[in-house]
Amino acid sequence: MVYDSAIIGTGPAGLSAALNLKIRDKNFIWIGSRSLSDKVSKAECISNYPGFTRASGQELIEAFQKQVQEMVLEILEQMVNSIMPLSGHYALMAGSAFYEAKTIILTTGILNRAQLPGEEEYLGKGVSYCATCDGDLYRGKTIGILCNNSRFEHEVKYLADLAERVYYFPSYRDVAVDAENMERPGSRILEITGERRVNGLKLADGRELYVDGVFCLRDSVALSSMLPKLETADGHILVDRAMATNLPGIYAAGDCTGRPYQYAKAVGEGNVAAHSVLEYLAGEA
Amino acid sequence: MVYDSAIIGTGPAGLSAALNLKIRDKNFIWIGSRSLSDKVSKAECISNYPGFTRASGQELIEAFQKQVQEMVLEILEQMVNSIMPLSGHYALMAGSAFYEAKTIILTTGILNRAQLPGEEEYLGKGVSYCATCDGDLYRGKTIGILCNNSRFEHEVKYLADLAERVYYFPSYRDVAVDAENMERPGSRILEITGERRVNGLKLADGRELYVDGVFCLRDSVALSSMLPKLETADGHILVDRAMATNLPGIYAAGDCTGRPYQYAKAVGEGNVAAHSVLEYLAGEA
Repeated sequence: MVYDSAIIGTGPAGLSAALNLKIRDKNFIWIGSRSLSDKVSKAECISNYPGFTRASGQELIEAFQKQVQEMVLEILEQMVNSIMPLSGHYALMAGSAFYEAKTIILTTGILNRAQLPGEEEYLGKGVSYCATCDGDLYRGKTIGILCNNSRFEHEVKYLADLAERVYYFPSYRDVAVDAENMERPGSRILEITGERRVNGLKLADGRELYVDGVFCLRDSVALSSMLPKLETADGHILVDRAMATNLPGIYAAGDCTGRPYQYAKAVGEGNVAAHSVLEYLAGEA
Repeated sequence: MVYDSAIIGTGPAGLSAALNLKIRDKNFIWIGSRSLSDKVSKAECISNYPGFTRASGQELIEAFQKQVQEMVLEILEQMVNSIMPLSGHYALMAGSAFYEAKTIILTTGILNRAQLPGEEEYLGKGVSYCATCDGDLYRGKTIGILCNNSRFEHEVKYLADLAERVYYFPSYRDVAVDAENMERPGSRILEITGERRVNGLKLADGRELYVDGVFCLRDSVALSSMLPKLETADGHILVDRAMATNLPGIYAAGDCTGRPYQYAKAVGEGNVAAHSVLEYLAGEA
Protein backbone atom coordinates (compact mmCIF):
# COMPACT_ATOMS: atom_id res chain seq x y z
CA MET A 1 0.00 0.00 0.00
CA VAL A 2 1.06 3.57 -0.66
CA TYR A 3 0.50 5.94 2.28
CA ASP A 4 -0.62 9.52 1.71
CA SER A 5 2.33 10.73 3.71
CA ALA A 6 5.22 9.73 5.94
CA ILE A 7 6.30 12.10 8.70
CA ILE A 8 9.87 11.54 9.84
CA GLY A 9 10.61 12.92 13.29
CA THR A 10 8.59 13.25 16.49
CA GLY A 11 9.63 16.65 17.83
CA PRO A 12 7.24 19.62 17.93
CA ALA A 13 7.29 20.02 14.13
CA GLY A 14 6.46 16.35 13.56
CA LEU A 15 3.69 16.44 16.17
CA SER A 16 2.17 19.55 14.63
CA ALA A 17 2.19 17.94 11.17
CA ALA A 18 0.77 14.66 12.52
CA LEU A 19 -2.13 16.39 14.30
CA ASN A 20 -3.18 18.06 11.07
CA LEU A 21 -2.95 14.95 8.88
CA LYS A 22 -4.89 13.02 11.52
CA ILE A 23 -7.69 15.59 11.72
CA ARG A 24 -7.94 15.53 7.95
CA ASP A 25 -8.20 11.70 7.95
CA LYS A 26 -5.09 11.08 5.91
CA ASN A 27 -3.53 7.66 5.80
CA PHE A 28 -0.02 8.35 7.05
CA ILE A 29 2.82 6.89 9.06
CA TRP A 30 4.79 8.74 11.70
CA ILE A 31 8.32 7.53 12.32
CA GLY A 32 10.49 8.48 15.27
CA SER A 33 10.84 8.11 19.01
CA ARG A 34 7.88 7.37 21.30
CA SER A 35 9.49 9.67 23.83
CA LEU A 36 8.91 12.38 21.18
CA SER A 37 11.79 14.78 21.80
CA ASP A 38 14.70 14.66 24.21
CA LYS A 39 15.41 18.28 23.39
CA VAL A 40 11.98 19.35 24.67
CA SER A 41 11.82 17.07 27.71
CA LYS A 42 15.25 18.17 28.94
CA ALA A 43 14.54 21.90 28.57
CA GLU A 44 14.79 23.67 31.91
CA CYS A 45 12.32 26.47 31.38
CA ILE A 46 10.32 27.48 28.33
CA SER A 47 9.04 31.05 28.46
CA ASN A 48 8.17 31.77 24.88
CA TYR A 49 5.83 29.00 23.76
CA PRO A 50 2.40 30.67 23.59
CA GLY A 51 -0.06 29.04 25.97
CA PHE A 52 2.49 27.74 28.48
CA THR A 53 3.72 30.20 31.07
CA ARG A 54 7.25 29.39 32.21
CA ALA A 55 6.81 25.66 31.66
CA SER A 56 9.42 23.02 32.24
CA GLY A 57 10.30 20.84 29.28
CA GLN A 58 8.75 17.98 31.20
CA GLU A 59 5.38 19.79 31.43
CA LEU A 60 5.37 20.56 27.74
CA ILE A 61 6.34 17.03 26.74
CA GLU A 62 3.59 15.62 28.99
CA ALA A 63 1.04 17.86 27.27
CA PHE A 64 2.37 16.63 23.92
CA GLN A 65 2.21 12.98 25.06
CA LYS A 66 -1.35 13.43 26.27
CA GLN A 67 -2.29 14.85 22.89
CA VAL A 68 -0.60 11.96 21.06
CA GLN A 69 -2.64 9.49 23.12
CA GLU A 70 -5.97 11.27 22.95
CA MET A 71 -5.67 11.87 19.23
CA VAL A 72 -4.66 8.19 18.81
CA LEU A 73 -1.46 8.97 16.96
CA GLU A 74 0.79 5.97 16.45
CA ILE A 75 4.55 6.22 16.27
CA LEU A 76 6.76 3.70 14.46
CA GLU A 77 9.95 3.58 16.45
CA GLN A 78 12.35 3.00 13.61
CA MET A 79 15.16 4.82 11.91
CA VAL A 80 14.86 5.80 8.30
CA ASN A 81 18.01 4.83 6.45
CA SER A 82 17.16 5.92 2.97
CA ILE A 83 14.46 7.42 0.83
CA MET A 84 14.22 6.49 -2.83
CA PRO A 85 12.13 8.19 -5.50
CA LEU A 86 9.79 5.81 -7.36
CA SER A 87 7.48 6.92 -10.15
CA GLY A 88 5.26 9.53 -8.53
CA HIS A 89 5.95 8.55 -4.94
CA TYR A 90 8.72 7.53 -2.55
CA ALA A 91 10.02 4.38 -0.88
CA LEU A 92 11.41 4.54 2.64
CA MET A 93 13.75 2.00 4.19
CA ALA A 94 13.28 2.10 7.96
CA GLY A 95 15.20 -0.58 9.77
CA SER A 96 14.38 -3.68 7.76
CA ALA A 97 10.92 -2.39 6.89
CA PHE A 98 9.93 -0.84 3.63
CA TYR A 99 7.20 1.77 3.22
CA GLU A 100 5.77 3.67 0.28
CA ALA A 101 4.33 7.17 0.56
CA LYS A 102 3.11 9.83 -1.84
CA THR A 103 4.57 12.65 0.26
CA ILE A 104 7.15 13.02 3.00
CA ILE A 105 7.47 15.58 5.79
CA LEU A 106 11.02 15.76 7.17
CA THR A 107 11.12 17.00 10.77
CA THR A 108 14.47 15.55 11.70
CA GLY A 109 15.72 18.31 13.98
CA ILE A 110 19.14 19.91 13.79
CA LEU A 111 20.93 17.93 11.16
CA ASN A 112 23.84 15.79 12.03
CA ARG A 113 26.61 17.38 10.06
CA ALA A 114 29.33 15.65 12.05
CA GLN A 115 29.87 12.78 9.71
CA LEU A 116 33.18 11.09 10.13
CA PRO A 117 35.81 11.40 7.44
CA GLY A 118 35.37 8.30 5.29
CA GLU A 119 31.77 7.76 6.37
CA GLU A 120 30.10 8.95 3.20
CA GLU A 121 32.82 7.49 0.97
CA TYR A 122 32.45 3.96 2.36
CA LEU A 123 28.67 3.96 2.86
CA GLY A 124 27.53 0.57 1.53
CA LYS A 125 31.20 -0.51 1.40
CA GLY A 126 31.56 -1.40 5.07
CA VAL A 127 29.73 1.59 6.58
CA SER A 128 26.15 0.82 7.61
CA TYR A 129 23.41 2.63 9.50
CA CYS A 130 21.22 -0.43 10.00
CA ALA A 131 22.07 -3.44 12.16
CA THR A 132 19.05 -5.43 11.04
CA CYS A 133 19.71 -4.82 7.36
CA ASP A 134 23.43 -5.47 7.20
CA GLY A 135 24.34 -7.34 10.38
CA ASP A 136 24.34 -10.72 8.76
CA LEU A 137 27.15 -9.66 6.41
CA TYR A 138 29.49 -9.42 9.39
CA ARG A 139 28.96 -12.85 10.91
CA GLY A 140 32.28 -13.92 12.33
CA LYS A 141 33.98 -10.64 11.43
CA THR A 142 35.44 -7.66 13.29
CA ILE A 143 33.33 -4.54 13.47
CA GLY A 144 33.24 -1.10 15.03
CA ILE A 145 29.97 0.28 16.41
CA LEU A 146 29.43 3.94 17.04
CA CYS A 147 26.23 4.69 18.97
CA ASN A 148 24.76 7.91 20.38
CA ASN A 149 21.61 6.70 22.10
CA SER A 150 20.91 3.90 24.55
CA ARG A 151 17.77 3.00 22.68
CA PHE A 152 19.94 1.33 20.03
CA GLU A 153 21.53 -1.04 22.57
CA HIS A 154 19.38 -3.96 21.42
CA GLU A 155 20.89 -3.50 17.97
CA VAL A 156 24.37 -3.38 19.49
CA LYS A 157 23.62 -6.65 21.30
CA TYR A 158 22.36 -8.21 18.09
CA LEU A 159 25.56 -7.23 16.27
CA ALA A 160 27.77 -8.46 19.13
CA ASP A 161 26.05 -11.85 18.97
CA LEU A 162 26.90 -12.15 15.29
CA ALA A 163 30.37 -10.69 15.05
CA GLU A 164 33.66 -12.26 16.12
CA ARG A 165 34.90 -9.07 17.68
CA VAL A 166 33.32 -5.68 18.44
CA TYR A 167 34.90 -2.31 19.20
CA TYR A 168 32.19 -0.23 20.86
CA PHE A 169 32.16 3.60 20.81
CA PRO A 170 29.18 4.84 22.80
CA SER A 171 28.64 8.62 23.08
CA TYR A 172 25.89 8.50 25.70
CA ARG A 173 25.91 7.96 29.46
CA ASP A 174 25.06 4.86 31.48
CA VAL A 175 26.03 2.28 28.92
CA ALA A 176 24.18 -0.94 29.79
CA VAL A 177 25.21 -3.26 26.98
CA ASP A 178 28.19 -5.60 27.20
CA ALA A 179 29.48 -8.85 25.71
CA GLU A 180 32.56 -11.03 26.03
CA ASN A 181 33.73 -10.19 22.53
CA MET A 182 33.18 -6.45 23.04
CA GLU A 183 35.91 -3.94 23.79
CA ARG A 184 35.49 -0.24 24.49
CA PRO A 185 38.61 1.51 23.23
CA GLY A 186 37.78 4.63 25.26
CA SER A 187 38.94 6.98 22.54
CA ARG A 188 36.89 8.51 19.76
CA ILE A 189 37.06 7.68 16.08
CA LEU A 190 38.85 10.28 13.96
CA GLU A 191 38.46 8.60 10.59
CA ILE A 192 37.11 5.54 8.85
CA THR A 193 39.83 4.23 6.58
CA GLY A 194 39.80 1.74 3.74
CA GLU A 195 40.76 1.00 0.21
CA ARG A 196 37.94 -0.42 -1.84
CA ARG A 197 36.14 -1.24 1.40
CA VAL A 198 36.47 -0.22 5.03
CA ASN A 199 39.50 -1.76 6.69
CA GLY A 200 40.20 0.32 9.75
CA LEU A 201 39.47 3.02 12.28
CA LYS A 202 41.88 5.79 13.25
CA LEU A 203 41.40 6.82 16.86
CA ALA A 204 42.07 10.13 18.59
CA ASP A 205 44.68 8.45 20.83
CA GLY A 206 46.73 7.50 17.76
CA ARG A 207 45.80 3.82 17.58
CA GLU A 208 44.58 2.21 14.36
CA LEU A 209 42.17 -0.69 14.65
CA TYR A 210 41.49 -3.24 11.95
CA VAL A 211 37.76 -3.67 11.20
CA ASP A 212 35.73 -5.25 8.39
CA GLY A 213 32.88 -2.83 8.86
CA VAL A 214 31.50 -0.04 11.02
CA PHE A 215 27.94 0.59 12.16
CA CYS A 216 26.90 4.17 12.92
CA LEU A 217 23.79 3.99 15.11
CA ARG A 218 22.71 7.57 15.51
CA ASP A 219 19.42 9.30 16.17
CA SER A 220 19.44 10.69 12.70
CA VAL A 221 21.12 9.68 9.54
CA ALA A 222 22.81 12.49 7.67
CA LEU A 223 20.30 13.64 5.09
CA SER A 224 23.01 13.74 2.46
CA SER A 225 23.15 9.97 2.60
CA MET A 226 19.43 9.43 3.23
CA LEU A 227 18.26 11.59 0.33
CA PRO A 228 21.23 12.75 -1.74
CA LYS A 229 19.31 15.02 -4.12
CA LEU A 230 17.77 17.14 -1.37
CA GLU A 231 19.04 20.71 -1.53
CA THR A 232 20.62 22.02 1.64
CA ALA A 233 22.67 25.07 2.56
CA ASP A 234 24.76 25.58 5.67
CA GLY A 235 23.46 22.33 7.08
CA HIS A 236 19.78 23.24 6.66
CA ILE A 237 17.20 21.97 4.22
CA LEU A 238 16.20 24.66 1.73
CA VAL A 239 12.45 25.28 1.78
CA ASP A 240 10.08 27.92 0.51
CA ARG A 241 7.24 29.61 2.46
CA ALA A 242 5.06 26.53 1.89
CA MET A 243 7.83 24.36 3.42
CA ALA A 244 8.39 22.67 0.05
CA THR A 245 11.90 21.36 -0.66
CA ASN A 246 13.37 21.08 -4.14
CA LEU A 247 11.93 17.55 -4.45
CA PRO A 248 8.26 17.18 -5.44
CA GLY A 249 6.09 15.95 -2.57
CA ILE A 250 8.86 16.35 0.00
CA TYR A 251 8.42 19.02 2.67
CA ALA A 252 10.46 19.91 5.74
CA ALA A 253 9.74 21.66 9.03
CA GLY A 254 11.38 22.61 12.30
CA ASP A 255 15.03 22.95 13.24
CA CYS A 256 16.16 21.08 10.10
CA THR A 257 15.06 24.07 7.98
CA GLY A 258 17.18 26.58 9.89
CA ARG A 259 17.25 29.08 12.71
CA PRO A 260 15.74 30.18 15.01
CA TYR A 261 15.71 26.78 16.73
CA GLN A 262 12.43 27.38 18.54
CA TYR A 263 9.43 25.23 19.46
CA ALA A 264 6.97 27.87 18.23
CA LYS A 265 8.69 28.01 14.86
CA ALA A 266 8.71 24.22 14.66
CA VAL A 267 4.98 23.81 15.34
CA GLY A 268 4.21 26.58 12.87
CA GLU A 269 6.26 25.00 10.13
CA GLY A 270 4.87 21.53 10.84
CA ASN A 271 1.37 22.94 10.46
CA VAL A 272 2.21 24.63 7.17
CA ALA A 273 3.99 21.52 5.82
CA ALA A 274 0.92 19.40 6.59
CA HIS A 275 -1.34 21.87 4.81
CA SER A 276 0.99 21.84 1.81
CA VAL A 277 0.79 18.03 1.78
CA LEU A 278 -3.02 18.28 1.81
CA GLU A 279 -2.88 20.60 -1.15
CA TYR A 280 -0.41 18.37 -2.99
CA LEU A 281 -2.62 15.32 -2.44
CA ALA A 282 -5.71 17.22 -3.56
CA GLY A 283 -3.97 18.30 -6.77
CA GLU A 284 -2.84 14.76 -7.44
CA ALA A 285 -6.27 13.17 -6.93
CA MET B 1 12.09 58.20 22.51
CA VAL B 2 12.54 55.66 19.78
CA TYR B 3 11.39 52.15 20.71
CA ASP B 4 13.30 49.09 19.52
CA SER B 5 10.12 47.72 18.06
CA ALA B 6 6.36 48.15 17.77
CA ILE B 7 4.19 45.05 17.49
CA ILE B 8 0.80 45.75 15.92
CA GLY B 9 -1.79 43.11 16.72
CA THR B 10 -2.52 40.94 19.75
CA GLY B 11 -3.48 37.60 18.22
CA PRO B 12 -1.29 34.49 18.55
CA ALA B 13 1.38 35.90 16.20
CA GLY B 14 1.61 39.16 18.15
CA LEU B 15 1.75 37.33 21.47
CA SER B 16 4.51 35.05 20.23
CA ALA B 17 6.55 38.03 19.02
CA ALA B 18 5.94 39.96 22.26
CA LEU B 19 7.09 37.04 24.45
CA ASN B 20 10.38 36.89 22.60
CA LEU B 21 11.10 40.63 22.65
CA LYS B 22 10.23 40.69 26.36
CA ILE B 23 12.57 37.80 27.20
CA ARG B 24 15.32 39.55 25.30
CA ASP B 25 14.72 42.80 27.24
CA LYS B 26 13.84 44.91 24.24
CA ASN B 27 12.13 48.23 24.67
CA PHE B 28 8.95 47.76 22.65
CA ILE B 29 5.30 48.70 22.49
CA TRP B 30 2.50 46.28 21.77
CA ILE B 31 -0.63 47.76 20.23
CA GLY B 32 -3.98 45.99 19.96
CA SER B 33 -6.87 44.68 21.96
CA ARG B 34 -6.55 43.66 25.63
CA SER B 35 -8.95 40.84 24.88
CA LEU B 36 -6.18 39.60 22.56
CA SER B 37 -8.10 37.82 19.81
CA ASP B 38 -11.81 37.41 19.22
CA LYS B 39 -11.00 34.81 16.61
CA VAL B 40 -9.28 32.60 19.19
CA SER B 41 -11.74 33.14 22.04
CA LYS B 42 -14.75 32.32 19.86
CA ALA B 43 -13.23 29.12 18.43
CA GLU B 44 -15.35 26.12 19.31
CA CYS B 45 -12.69 23.42 19.44
CA ILE B 46 -9.01 23.56 18.64
CA SER B 47 -7.48 20.16 17.95
CA ASN B 48 -4.26 21.00 16.20
CA TYR B 49 -2.42 23.41 18.47
CA PRO B 50 0.42 21.36 19.97
CA GLY B 51 0.16 21.19 23.75
CA PHE B 52 -3.62 21.67 23.98
CA THR B 53 -5.77 18.61 23.44
CA ARG B 54 -9.16 19.51 22.02
CA ALA B 55 -9.23 22.88 23.75
CA SER B 56 -11.97 25.43 23.49
CA GLY B 57 -10.99 28.84 22.23
CA GLN B 58 -11.81 30.11 25.70
CA GLU B 59 -9.26 27.77 27.31
CA LEU B 60 -6.56 28.80 24.89
CA ILE B 61 -7.26 32.51 25.29
CA GLU B 62 -7.19 32.13 29.09
CA ALA B 63 -3.78 30.47 28.84
CA PHE B 64 -2.62 33.34 26.63
CA GLN B 65 -4.06 35.93 29.06
CA LYS B 66 -2.31 34.26 31.99
CA GLN B 67 0.96 34.40 30.09
CA VAL B 68 0.46 38.08 29.23
CA GLN B 69 -0.05 38.85 32.91
CA GLU B 70 2.75 36.71 34.31
CA MET B 71 5.24 37.97 31.73
CA VAL B 72 4.08 41.55 32.50
CA LEU B 73 3.28 42.39 28.91
CA GLU B 74 1.45 45.66 28.44
CA ILE B 75 -0.99 46.30 25.63
CA LEU B 76 -1.79 49.75 24.27
CA GLU B 77 -5.43 49.60 23.26
CA GLN B 78 -5.25 51.87 20.26
CA MET B 79 -5.68 51.63 16.53
CA VAL B 80 -2.78 52.41 14.26
CA ASN B 81 -3.90 54.72 11.49
CA SER B 82 -0.70 55.21 9.63
CA ILE B 83 2.97 54.35 9.60
CA MET B 84 5.47 56.78 8.15
CA PRO B 85 9.11 56.13 7.32
CA LEU B 86 11.53 58.56 8.97
CA SER B 87 15.28 58.42 8.49
CA GLY B 88 16.25 54.96 9.73
CA HIS B 89 13.09 54.31 11.70
CA TYR B 90 9.32 54.66 11.62
CA ALA B 91 6.63 56.87 13.11
CA LEU B 92 3.26 55.40 14.04
CA MET B 93 0.07 57.36 14.47
CA ALA B 94 -2.20 55.44 16.84
CA GLY B 95 -5.35 57.28 17.77
CA SER B 96 -4.03 60.72 18.62
CA ALA B 97 -0.76 59.33 19.95
CA PHE B 98 2.52 59.30 18.09
CA TYR B 99 5.23 56.67 18.54
CA GLU B 100 8.63 56.08 17.00
CA ALA B 101 10.15 52.64 16.55
CA LYS B 102 13.19 51.20 14.82
CA THR B 103 11.32 48.11 13.69
CA ILE B 104 7.71 47.05 13.28
CA ILE B 105 6.08 43.63 13.44
CA LEU B 106 2.71 43.55 11.70
CA THR B 107 0.40 40.85 13.06
CA THR B 108 -2.85 42.34 11.96
CA GLY B 109 -4.74 39.17 11.10
CA ILE B 110 -6.66 38.53 7.92
CA LEU B 111 -6.53 41.82 6.14
CA ASN B 112 -9.61 43.83 5.61
CA ARG B 113 -9.91 43.86 1.85
CA ALA B 114 -13.53 44.93 1.94
CA GLN B 115 -12.88 48.59 1.49
CA LEU B 116 -15.83 50.50 0.21
CA PRO B 117 -15.77 51.98 -3.26
CA GLY B 118 -14.62 55.55 -2.75
CA GLU B 119 -12.98 54.85 0.59
CA GLU B 120 -9.39 54.99 -0.59
CA GLU B 121 -10.08 57.78 -3.07
CA TYR B 122 -11.51 60.11 -0.42
CA LEU B 123 -9.22 59.17 2.46
CA GLY B 124 -8.22 62.49 4.03
CA LYS B 125 -10.92 64.18 1.94
CA GLY B 126 -13.84 63.30 4.16
CA VAL B 127 -12.98 59.68 4.93
CA SER B 128 -11.33 59.18 8.32
CA TYR B 129 -10.31 56.21 10.46
CA CYS B 130 -9.76 58.21 13.63
CA ALA B 131 -12.48 59.96 15.64
CA THR B 132 -10.01 61.63 17.99
CA CYS B 133 -7.84 62.95 15.17
CA ASP B 134 -10.47 64.28 12.82
CA GLY B 135 -13.70 64.59 14.84
CA ASP B 136 -13.29 68.29 15.45
CA LEU B 137 -13.44 68.99 11.71
CA TYR B 138 -17.06 67.84 11.66
CA ARG B 139 -18.44 70.00 14.44
CA GLY B 140 -21.99 70.91 13.46
CA LYS B 141 -21.86 68.82 10.28
CA THR B 142 -23.51 65.68 8.95
CA ILE B 143 -21.48 62.48 9.09
CA GLY B 144 -21.75 58.79 8.47
CA ILE B 145 -20.14 56.32 10.89
CA LEU B 146 -19.43 52.74 9.95
CA CYS B 147 -18.35 50.59 12.91
CA ASN B 148 -17.62 46.87 13.24
CA ASN B 149 -16.87 46.51 16.93
CA SER B 150 -18.64 47.66 20.08
CA ARG B 151 -15.35 48.71 21.59
CA PHE B 152 -15.40 51.79 19.35
CA GLU B 153 -18.75 52.97 20.77
CA HIS B 154 -17.09 55.61 22.93
CA GLU B 155 -15.68 57.09 19.74
CA VAL B 156 -19.10 56.97 18.14
CA LYS B 157 -20.50 58.83 21.16
CA TYR B 158 -17.75 61.41 20.92
CA LEU B 159 -18.54 62.03 17.26
CA ALA B 160 -22.29 62.19 17.91
CA ASP B 161 -21.70 64.85 20.55
CA LEU B 162 -19.85 66.98 18.00
CA ALA B 163 -21.81 66.50 14.84
CA GLU B 164 -25.16 67.99 13.88
CA ARG B 165 -26.43 64.75 12.47
CA VAL B 166 -25.13 61.17 12.42
CA TYR B 167 -26.04 58.21 10.22
CA TYR B 168 -24.85 55.13 12.08
CA PHE B 169 -23.98 51.83 10.33
CA PRO B 170 -23.00 49.26 12.96
CA SER B 171 -22.04 45.77 11.75
CA TYR B 172 -21.95 44.10 15.19
CA ARG B 173 -24.67 42.87 17.52
CA ASP B 174 -26.08 44.43 20.67
CA VAL B 175 -25.53 48.03 19.75
CA ALA B 176 -25.52 50.07 22.96
CA VAL B 177 -24.81 53.56 21.72
CA ASP B 178 -27.52 56.05 20.84
CA ALA B 179 -28.10 59.81 20.61
CA GLU B 180 -30.92 62.14 19.68
CA ASN B 181 -29.17 63.27 16.50
CA MET B 182 -28.35 59.69 15.46
CA GLU B 183 -30.24 57.70 12.88
CA ARG B 184 -29.64 54.09 11.86
CA PRO B 185 -30.60 53.78 8.20
CA GLY B 186 -30.75 49.97 8.49
CA SER B 187 -29.20 49.42 5.10
CA ARG B 188 -25.56 48.97 4.24
CA ILE B 189 -23.32 51.43 2.44
CA LEU B 190 -22.58 50.51 -1.17
CA GLU B 191 -20.35 53.44 -2.03
CA ILE B 192 -18.87 56.63 -0.67
CA THR B 193 -19.50 59.34 -3.23
CA GLY B 194 -18.07 62.81 -3.70
CA GLU B 195 -16.46 65.27 -6.02
CA ARG B 196 -13.38 66.90 -4.57
CA ARG B 197 -14.53 65.77 -1.14
CA VAL B 198 -17.03 63.26 0.21
CA ASN B 199 -20.59 64.43 -0.23
CA GLY B 200 -22.74 61.32 0.05
CA LEU B 201 -23.38 57.68 0.76
CA LYS B 202 -25.13 55.29 -1.62
CA LEU B 203 -27.07 52.65 0.27
CA ALA B 204 -28.02 49.14 -0.74
CA ASP B 205 -31.74 50.04 -0.51
CA GLY B 206 -31.27 52.69 -3.21
CA ARG B 207 -31.25 55.75 -0.99
CA GLU B 208 -28.55 58.40 -1.23
CA LEU B 209 -27.67 60.31 1.93
CA TYR B 210 -25.90 63.64 2.04
CA VAL B 211 -22.85 63.62 4.39
CA ASP B 212 -19.87 65.90 4.91
CA GLY B 213 -17.66 63.05 6.01
CA VAL B 214 -17.58 59.38 6.93
CA PHE B 215 -15.74 57.63 9.74
CA CYS B 216 -14.77 53.98 9.26
CA LEU B 217 -14.16 52.53 12.72
CA ARG B 218 -12.92 49.03 12.06
CA ASP B 219 -10.72 46.60 13.92
CA SER B 220 -8.03 47.06 11.35
CA VAL B 221 -7.20 49.71 8.89
CA ALA B 222 -6.53 48.51 5.38
CA LEU B 223 -2.77 48.21 5.13
CA SER B 224 -2.81 49.87 1.75
CA SER B 225 -3.80 53.08 3.45
CA MET B 226 -1.73 52.53 6.61
CA LEU B 227 1.51 51.77 4.80
CA PRO B 228 1.12 52.32 1.05
CA LYS B 229 4.56 51.08 0.00
CA LEU B 230 4.18 47.66 1.62
CA GLU B 231 4.13 44.91 -0.98
CA THR B 232 1.10 42.65 -0.89
CA ALA B 233 -0.34 40.01 -3.20
CA ASP B 234 -3.84 38.56 -3.14
CA GLY B 235 -4.55 40.45 0.04
CA HIS B 236 -1.53 39.10 1.93
CA ILE B 237 1.70 40.79 2.93
CA LEU B 238 4.65 39.42 0.98
CA VAL B 239 7.35 38.09 3.31
CA ASP B 240 10.42 35.92 3.01
CA ARG B 241 11.40 33.00 5.27
CA ALA B 242 12.69 35.48 7.89
CA MET B 243 9.26 37.20 7.82
CA ALA B 244 10.84 40.33 6.33
CA THR B 245 8.62 42.49 4.14
CA ASN B 246 9.93 44.64 1.30
CA LEU B 247 10.44 47.54 3.73
CA PRO B 248 13.61 47.56 5.88
CA GLY B 249 12.89 46.86 9.54
CA ILE B 250 9.26 45.90 8.89
CA TYR B 251 8.27 42.27 9.47
CA ALA B 252 4.93 40.51 9.36
CA ALA B 253 3.53 37.32 10.90
CA GLY B 254 0.32 35.33 11.17
CA ASP B 255 -2.80 35.36 9.02
CA CYS B 256 -1.82 38.64 7.35
CA THR B 257 1.02 36.81 5.54
CA GLY B 258 -1.26 34.20 3.99
CA ARG B 259 -2.74 30.76 4.38
CA PRO B 260 -3.05 28.43 6.21
CA TYR B 261 -4.90 30.59 8.75
CA GLN B 262 -3.74 28.58 11.75
CA TYR B 263 -2.72 29.38 15.32
CA ALA B 264 0.37 27.18 15.11
CA LYS B 265 1.53 28.95 11.95
CA ALA B 266 0.87 32.32 13.59
CA VAL B 267 2.91 31.61 16.73
CA GLY B 268 5.72 30.20 14.60
CA GLU B 269 5.87 33.24 12.37
CA GLY B 270 5.63 35.62 15.34
CA ASN B 271 8.61 33.88 16.88
CA VAL B 272 10.65 34.10 13.67
CA ALA B 273 9.71 37.76 13.13
CA ALA B 274 10.88 38.61 16.66
CA HIS B 275 14.19 36.85 16.07
CA SER B 276 14.61 38.73 12.79
CA VAL B 277 14.01 41.98 14.68
CA LEU B 278 16.69 40.98 17.21
CA GLU B 279 19.12 40.36 14.37
CA TYR B 280 18.21 43.63 12.68
CA LEU B 281 18.73 45.58 15.91
CA ALA B 282 22.06 43.83 16.53
CA GLY B 283 23.27 44.70 13.03
CA GLU B 284 22.22 48.30 13.50
CA ALA B 285 23.91 48.76 16.88
